[in-house]
Amino acid sequence: MVTVLYAGEAADWPDYAPALRTALPGVRLVLPGEVPPDTVDYIVYAPSGPVQDFTPYTRAKAVLSLWAGVERVVGNPTLTQPLCRMVDEGLERGMVEWVTGHALAAHLRIGFWAGAQDGIWRNDQPAPLASERGVTVLGLGALGAACARTLSGLGFRVTGWSRSHRDVPGVTCLSGAEGLRAALATAEIVALILPNTPETADLLNAETLGWLPRGAVVLNPGRGTLIDDAALLAALDAGQVGHAVLDVFRTEPLPPDHPYWAHPRVTVTPHIAAATRPGSAARVIAENVRRGEAGEPFVHLVDRARGY
Amino acid sequence: MVTVLYAGEAADWPDYAPALRTALPGVRLVLPGEVPPDTVDYIVYAPSGPVQDFTPYTRAKAVLSLWAGVERVVGNPTLTQPLCRMVDEGLERGMVEWVTGHALAAHLRIGFWAGAQDGIWRNDQPAPLASERGVTVLGLGALGAACARTLSGLGFRVTGWSRSHRDVPGVTCLSGAEGLRAALATAEIVALILPNTPETADLLNAETLGWLPRGAVVLNPGRGTLIDDAALLAALDAGQVGHAVLDVFRTEPLPPDHPYWAHPRVTVTPHIAAATRPGSAARVIAENVRRGEAGEPFVHLVDRARGY
Repeated sequence: MVTVLYAGEAADWPDYAPALRTALPGVRLVLPGEVPPDTVDYIVYAPSGPVQDFTPYTRAKAVLSLWAGVERVVGNPTLTQPLCRMVDEGLERGMVEWVTGHALAAHLRIGFWAGAQDGIWRNDQPAPLASERGVTVLGLGALGAACARTLSGLGFRVTGWSRSHRDVPGVTCLSGAEGLRAALATAEIVALILPNTPETADLLNAETLGWLPRGAVVLNPGRGTLIDDAALLAALDAGQVGHAVLDVFRTEPLPPDHPYWAHPRVTVTPHIAAATRPGSAARVIAENVRRGEAGEPFVHLVDRARGY
Repeated sequence: MVTVLYAGEAADWPDYAPALRTALPGVRLVLPGEVPPDTVDYIVYAPSGPVQDFTPYTRAKAVLSLWAGVERVVGNPTLTQPLCRMVDEGLERGMVEWVTGHALAAHLRIGFWAGAQDGIWRNDQPAPLASERGVTVLGLGALGAACARTLSGLGFRVTGWSRSHRDVPGVTCLSGAEGLRAALATAEIVALILPNTPETADLLNAETLGWLPRGAVVLNPGRGTLIDDAALLAALDAGQVGHAVLDVFRTEPLPPDHPYWAHPRVTVTPHIAAATRPGSAARVIAENVRRGEAGEPFVHLVDRARGY
């Protein structure tokens, strides 16, 4: 019988237990300490869970992460098994909804109108249509490409940027260091949906923030490390960046005294853009268990050299 | 030579003149008083414009409205010519963007998060996905159907309702008096995109607001007459309606002392959801002039008996 160890957060077990049992019928689902480590076939893993030393799991065929971001495990020297990250349909939908909703809110100036309730009828400035609005998505992996496609479908003029070239229908795709400047130059709204790697650290910094059109809106549902926080705060103070909606941070929870909380042009959301949903995540885990048992290649296998 | 009279608002003439000249090459474009009324072939009309007595325009083949709503002209006893309303691509896109943006803002609770900047990390309540959220569109004309399709494409569970049955792919379509109760019962978010007719007056009233799920969000980019204002204010005070975003009103501009301005659960926007854009509107006018000259049926012809 195949043995699958749940090594996610204990607090999430009540949600994951029924989802994994439904998705993995006929599989022995165990918690840490319930069986000897060398009898485990697959490890369902979270960076915040109890298993960080993979040495005793000599029989494990794969480590299946519940998280999309794997930067906290990819360099773990005890990890010799294949590592798969989570690409969850629910997570992708959540990300698309968060990015699309905040992009439209910026486009329509919903926050401005929410505050303009003083009885003055300000209808002399027709807003531009989405077809007149440039939106740039940094990162064209599964999540970024899904966001770019949806924004394009709503009529925005969408530019996508990735390290190496990708094609997304309806999206102007740029790549590499030279493409970044052009991608940012048209970004009235820019969404950061990149992995956390050494190459992406501080991608938005004092220099690159200066390439944006004045008053641009920054959306970061990706990784906290993508932004040089001091540079962003300075760009907000100077009006170069008009508003920032930030969902991820270098330290989470974001400390109560962090200047982002108090800044009038920053909206903090508490890492909610892309929540993994137990039901759909369990189906992704089950698919990789099935593939492992059938000798087929895993899906969403992490390239350890690239880091994602 | 074909003569087209511009009888829209004088203030809009500087925007419309170049757009109409571009769309109508070879046509004589005139203003009221410049030529005898019985030499005019087509009247470009706005309810707020200078021509409300059509009697002298004995040769006019059609009255081509710049407005989508024709309730202020459809009952005009001097109007014997065919009346066409404006169905402008720019207007439709603006409506779709306004409805989609405010629906996503309600779905994602963007206003709540904008206010939750007190340093408390509230990430214990994962939001539902759009696929778990019921949105209802009242009205399935060109604008309503476009909104319903877009919301469905974003993953929402969309119900559409119209007086007589219409089919919209991906949308659960209901109709008639008996369908309205079912359409409202699943409406966590409801958008009103109906014409102003005797049948639609006060469609949302004390009784029908009670059919909504508690805390529902009301979006009205349609017509001010669709809502019994006193009933909506009572439903907001009682918590039956959680929030209302209102773009149209019985009196516009909305008077500064109207309770909607001061209500904490109401966002007033100043009739901006669906602005007619001169460029695309002029192309619609030109198409009907072409059709009239070619003896083809007009597009967007108003059914005087139905009132739209």
